[in-house]
Amino acid sequence: MSFDIIRSGRAILHVTDLEASKKFYDALGFIETESDEKQVFLRGLEEHNHHSLLLKEKETPALEVISYKVRSENDLDKLASKLQNDGNEVKWLEEGEQKAVGRAFRYQDISGLPVEYYAQMETVERKLQQYDLYKGAKVQRIDHFNCNVPDVEQAYNYYIDELGFACSEYTAGEEDKIWAAWLHRKPSVHDVAYMNGVGPRLHHVGFWLKDPMSLIDGCDVLASMGYGPNIERGPGRHGLSNAFFLYLRDPDGHRIELYNGDYLTSDPDFKPIRWELDDPMRQTFWGHEAPDSWFNEATEVLNVHSNEKVKLKEPKLKKRKPTFVI
Amino acid sequence: MSFDIIRSGRAILHVTDLEASKKFYDALGFIETESDEKQVFLRGLEEHNHHSLLLKEKETPALEVISYKVRSENDLDKLASKLQNDGNEVKWLEEGEQKAVGRAFRYQDISGLPVEYYAQMETVERKLQQYDLYKGAKVQRIDHFNCNVPDVEQAYNYYIDELGFACSEYTAGEEDKIWAAWLHRKPSVHDVAYMNGVGPRLHHVGFWLKDPMSLIDGCDVLASMGYGPNIERGPGRHGLSNAFFLYLRDPDGHRIELYNGDYLTSDPDFKPIRWELDDPMRQTFWGHEAPDSWFNEATEVLNVHSNEKVKLKEPKLKKRKPTFVI
Amino acid sequence: MSFDIIRSGRAILHVTDLEASKKFYDALGFIETESDEKQVFLRGLEEHNHHSLLLKEKETPALEVISYKVRSENDLDKLASKLQNDGNEVKWLEEGEQKAVGRAFRYQDISGLPVEYYAQMETVERKLQQYDLYKGAKVQRIDHFNCNVPDVEQAYNYYIDELGFACSEYTAGEEDKIWAAWLHRKPSVHDVAYMNGVGPRLHHVGFWLKDPMSLIDGCDVLASMGYGPNIERGPGRHGLSNAFFLYLRDPDGHRIELYNGDYLTSDPDFKPIRWELDDPMRQTFWGHEAPDSWFNEATEVLNVHSNEKVKLKEPKLKKRKPTFVI
Amino acid sequence: MSFDIIRSGRAILHVTDLEASKKFYDALGFIETESDEKQVFLRGLEEHNHHSLLLKEKETPALEVISYKVRSENDLDKLASKLQNDGNEVKWLEEGEQKAVGRAFRYQDISGLPVEYYAQMETVERKLQQYDLYKGAKVQRIDHFNCNVPDVEQAYNYYIDELGFACSEYTAGEEDKIWAAWLHRKPSVHDVAYMNGVGPRLHHVGFWLKDPMSLIDGCDVLASMGYGPNIERGPGRHGLSNAFFLYLRDPDGHRIELYNGDYLTSDPDFKPIRWELDDPMRQTFWGHEAPDSWFNEATEVLNVHSNEKVKLKEPKLKKRKPTFVI
Repeated sequence: MSFDIIRSGRAILHVTDLEASKKFYDALGFIETESDEKQVFLRGLEEHNHHSLLLKEKETPALEVISYKVRSENDLDKLASKLQNDGNEVKWLEEGEQKAVGRAFRYQDISGLPVEYYAQMETVERKLQQYDLYKGAKVQRIDHFNCNVPDVEQAYNYYIDELGFACSEYTAGEEDKIWAAWLHRKPSVHDVAYMNGVGPRLHHVGFWLKDPMSLIDGCDVLASMGYGPNIERGPGRHGLSNAFFLYLRDPDGHRIELYNGDYLTSDPDFKPIRWELDDPMRQTFWGHEAPDSWFNEATEVLNVHSNEKVKLKEPKLKKRKPTFVI
Repeated sequence: MSFDIIRSGRAILHVTDLEASKKFYDALGFIETESDEKQVFLRGLEEHNHHSLLLKEKETPALEVISYKVRSENDLDKLASKLQNDGNEVKWLEEGEQKAVGRAFRYQDISGLPVEYYAQMETVERKLQQYDLYKGAKVQRIDHFNCNVPDVEQAYNYYIDELGFACSEYTAGEEDKIWAAWLHRKPSVHDVAYMNGVGPRLHHVGFWLKDPMSLIDGCDVLASMGYGPNIERGPGRHGLSNAFFLYLRDPDGHRIELYNGDYLTSDPDFKPIRWELDDPMRQTFWGHEAPDSWFNEATEVLNVHSNEKVKLKEPKLKKRKPTFVI
Repeated sequence: MSFDIIRSGRAILHVTDLEASKKFYDALGFIETESDEKQVFLRGLEEHNHHSLLLKEKETPALEVISYKVRSENDLDKLASKLQNDGNEVKWLEEGEQKAVGRAFRYQDISGLPVEYYAQMETVERKLQQYDLYKGAKVQRIDHFNCNVPDVEQAYNYYIDELGFACSEYTAGEEDKIWAAWLHRKPSVHDVAYMNGVGPRLHHVGFWLKDPMSLIDGCDVLASMGYGPNIERGPGRHGLSNAFFLYLRDPDGHRIELYNGDYLTSDPDFKPIRWELDDPMRQTFWGHEAPDSWFNEATEVLNVHSNEKVKLKEPKLKKRKPTFVI
Repeated sequence: MSFDIIRSGRAILHVTDLEASKKFYDALGFIETESDEKQVFLRGLEEHNHHSLLLKEKETPALEVISYKVRSENDLDKLASKLQNDGNEVKWLEEGEQKAVGRAFRYQDISGLPVEYYAQMETVERKLQQYDLYKGAKVQRIDHFNCNVPDVEQAYNYYIDELGFACSEYTAGEEDKIWAAWLHRKPSVHDVAYMNGVGPRLHHVGFWLKDPMSLIDGCDVLASMGYGPNIERGPGRHGLSNAFFLYLRDPDGHRIELYNGDYLTSDPDFKPIRWELDDPMRQTFWGHEAPDSWFNEATEVLNVHSNEKVKLKEPKLKKRKPTFVI
């Protein structure tokens, strides 16, 4: 590739009650970089970039865009050209149009997801060693996006062959088709995962924690503050990815994963790990089954050109809920 | 009282496959003090007494007895007299009749549970500082018994008024009746808990862990060894008792709780904490609902005189499964 | 004994800058029950009694008194009589004389330490499940006092034979004399420890933490807030007591131990563990040697009658700093 | 650069008693991939490559080589050419000459350190999810090398300008000269660090742990097995790198760091963090001063051509032991 996508960078979520959202994410331990009446910019404790989560108050909950950071302005231009050559309509946002972010472009990716790329984001003071600011689950940094898409193989092929992502683990379903895949640019398990399902939808945004106790602390603090019902699934261990996980629903139902575990995937000779969809040995490594809401509910996404909700499609693979719980 | 019951001491469980049970409890991190073809004596890492869990191979799974340690032989005699005066038939086991345990007596308590008292147990080397022996969930010591009984108030009144137990927390049900109660002699949340239900049955034996991470480690090790399906509930936090808990089912279905949290209950001015059975705010502090098996299944108990299973009775309070999950 | 001492209850320390002290103990994670210009009442997260640490602003740092809680007013009277019969001058403080504490009496104990007994302290709301208030090292409850005394054996004999304490562990020094001893009423390793040294002085007050990570978190938070130099020793593991420990010096140099580990000492057949003072195998279980300040510096104590500092005496055993580090 | 160095890959250490070394590293929690009479191949729990630490029994303790993994055979050839063009004598080891490793070349780098590059290493089964094999400190993967070199700036410039490393953090000393620098290829704090000192010597090899409790567990297990004296420094928190660290000396005195903390350094706009050598605020974040041995002692290194020990040089910057403790 002549361009270098570095990592998942930020998500922009529409929320219906900014104050309620601010309170929730503050309880979780996010740092508020800045905010005004209509939006709040949040980041994790180790993040030196301005934000990794931007919440905008709107009438309807939705995903505005998921964003990746590329190495340089030159990478950005080359990537835009490549995508246009592949038939995509690209929408540029010039420097100054978005707070704290440099030039960026958005488009609807092969799965219909609203995706943005940028090379520069304002840097701010890192709070990593201000332990007196740590609270809740002590959210450390953005880790990944997880999306429901109707055709996982199509997304898998494009991101690997055309965009240079690598696969760490995947789930094989009917007729050996890929039911779900974990893809990365940074050498962790993933920057983005695709799961077979009604889509395109955002299943969750994953944030990385420094250790398992931060996740337990997060549960206790959230419960103390009345957010017990927002805990949807976990804590538990995923077989796939080895993550110690917790899934939360924010006040608008957007799903956040708190995530610890992971491993280094830097090596070209790392062989993607295959899991069978229905192999009972591949279930959640330990702990309970996921609730139905975890399989059925997700955040709808917007068209980057029209700002309308993208129409949902049924998934190509029929089985929506595996015995194997991702 | 003229006698001093110190603490819950041991449980004797009948298991149907001693080898399978030994493997399971070894994985959990118990220390095997000794064993022969028909029984195995297990203890936790800090225990200086010979055992806190005795498994005997028999044809049918059952609880043979739950045992409390009293201060001295004199306390033992006084307690036996008191119970006989109250109309109970007491069965003495002289020194030498039971391995590692001194004189003891057994009787069927007010709830029909098989209960034993003893003053002396052989002491052995404590493994607390042999950290190279720590494994699994690093079980540290016995903590409590939890029993389903048909009439919780009757048990509550007898143990408090006649035997000198104190109540740390309780759940109030229909017409302000006590639906469940946590009673202690040692200054922890409990040595024994009674829950309204078909009984008398043993719901679980609880073992104390040194920290929350030992519980997480226990989940991972058990799952690695194929014991994932033995994890019935948790990890989670109980509102009542504040315990960080995990419930396991051993190969015969006996339920074991791994337990960390607790607090000191030494003070006479500690006021028992009341929880409403159906108050939605009193549910499991965070995490998932308990599975039905947790409410419906328990270990049947033996008559100390006949060695027959004790006949089960329906509970006095009708509601068996609260919204409030204990 | 005809009286029942329940546990170590509180310490009263004189500090020279109340604001500086408030800030330090707040950073550590204490809950402030109440305060005025001249004093602050602090407690741990699980404590239902009004306070376990009372700081009074005075011109000179000192220990005013260490206090034990007894079971009832009757126990208090019997204990006072016993001590008077043994030749001690007892000073009564009637109800109302001290904030939040009932009738109490003070005297200079056999080592010259200012000791107080009381049966009642006002109860307040426990913060155990308000995890959103947890911070710093999340101090949970008072655990013990540790004192330097010139004659450990004298203190040991009186507390065990006359006051009903039990010994969990001890260090044997020259000619088999007891160099240090850990004594308890509640079934933990100790309510009070005596170490051979220039005294009577208060070496430290120990507070119990719920788990090892709270101690690590405490280090990070204290360091972030500029209290790094207040960390005197640790984190490390004591061989004796098995405690995972951290020693801090407050702004006046009073020493606080954060303490996690411990074990249950409820049983009359628990045999006190003997450690040799100079056995190299008995050193700090792992980690560094204690700094000299830990051996040489301690808090001077007041006479309960004159409010003057108690004159210091040289220890009976010559060796002040063992190879064995307690 | 036309070549891509992926990460630090392995170290080869000479030890004088292979059995003693095997026992030590086994206690630490390394997985033994294979061994014979003269060598043992070790790896961490998540490593899918054959080994990250190779111990060879020899008469004298020494570092044979530190090795980096490159992306492909093509990268390997280009890198060798570049180094030869820069005047370095390169020694090739063809496939089959070294167990489990493909073609490789070695040379003496700009600091005189023996360095190896390879593209391929045999893959083996990852043990990440066999939690029943976890023990000791549960060593997860190799993280970095730390070396004493006489001229840090020279090494810094060559590795950054010529080999494509990036700097995460550095210490500025006399006249603004770089006293120490942390350089990385994988997006962590470092693959290699250089510290001003008598050299070239290997200061330590760092291994990554999954969480802080694994480090505490490691201390306890090592101490239980008699390895307490092998704990040289820690546990503590580095200000620089934010690592929660423990330094151990193996039976030959080779230094191993157990390391947890770190952060993601993927971004080109991450600004290297500057620390002043003597700023008292930059000392160890909390905890004790490092012992003198930590500053003075290190492993001598071999010449890759002659197998003789490389002659040591005095450092260019005079100050060897900063107030600031790295």
